[in-house]
Amino acid sequence: MARQLDPQCSAFQTAIDVLGRPWNALILGTLQAGPARFGELARKCHGVGAKILSARLKDLESRGLVHREVQIGPPIRVTYSLTSRGQAFEEVAHAIERWGRELTAPPRARRRGGRAGKP
Amino acid sequence: MARQLDPQCSAFQTAIDVLGRPWNALILGTLQAGPARFGELARKCHGVGAKILSARLKDLESRGLVHREVQIGPPIRVTYSLTSRGQAFEEVAHAIERWGRELTAPPRARRRGGRAGKP
Repeated sequence: MARQLDPQCSAFQTAIDVLGRPWNALILGTLQAGPARFGELARKCHGVGAKILSARLKDLESRGLVHREVQIGPPIRVTYSLTSRGQAFEEVAHAIERWGRELTAPPRARRRGGRAGKP
Repeated sequence: MARQLDPQCSAFQTAIDVLGRPWNALILGTLQAGPARFGELARKCHGVGAKILSARLKDLESRGLVHREVQIGPPIRVTYSLTSRGQAFEEVAHAIERWGRELTAPPRARRRGGRAGKP
C-alpha cells in the first residue's frame, strides 16, 4: 500500500480503543445487518450476557456509534441501530473477516518471502 | 459491499480475539514498518511497559503472527518481525486507521441517511 501506516496516530488509537474492548466489534458487526431490539441482539451475540451487552451498547452510544431509540408503548420498544460512523465500521469488519480467514486457513502457500503463486 | 458479513463466523472471531487484546494491534501495526529489536519496539510502542510488551510478543508469536529471531552474540540480539500472516494485518490496519479518522473528525456531512454529497 502506498500510504505509510502510523499506528501511533490518534485516529488509529481511537479506533483500537473501540475494538479493543470486549464484544464491541461483534456488536457493531451484528448491527450491520440492520436495526435490532435488545432481545434480538442478545440472541445474535450469543456469548454476551445481558448486563454486559447493555453496558457495551451504552459505551457504543456514548461514542456516537450506536443510536438507541425508545418507542413509548405499551409495550415499550427499544431499538438499536448504527449511526453513520457505526455503519462506516463495515469496511473494517470485512477486512477483519478476510484477515481472520487467513489466520484460520492451514499454512500452505506463503504469500510473501517465497515465490509461490496464488493457490 | 456485496458479501454479507457474518460476525459470528470463526474467521471474524479469531481475528477479533487477537485485536481485542490490549496492544496487539499497536504492536502488529508498528512491526509493519519492518523488523525491530525489543528496545526499538518498546520505544515505538510508548505506553506499553517492557513486561507487558514481552508477554504480548510471546502471544503474537504463539499465534504465528510474529517471528522471534535470536542472534547469538555477544551481544545477543533478539529481533522481531512479522510472519506472512502478520504482514497480512496491513489491510486491516489501514481500514482501522481510515475508520479512526472518521471517528475523530467533526460530524459534518452525513454519509448516509441524508442526501448530502461528498464534502
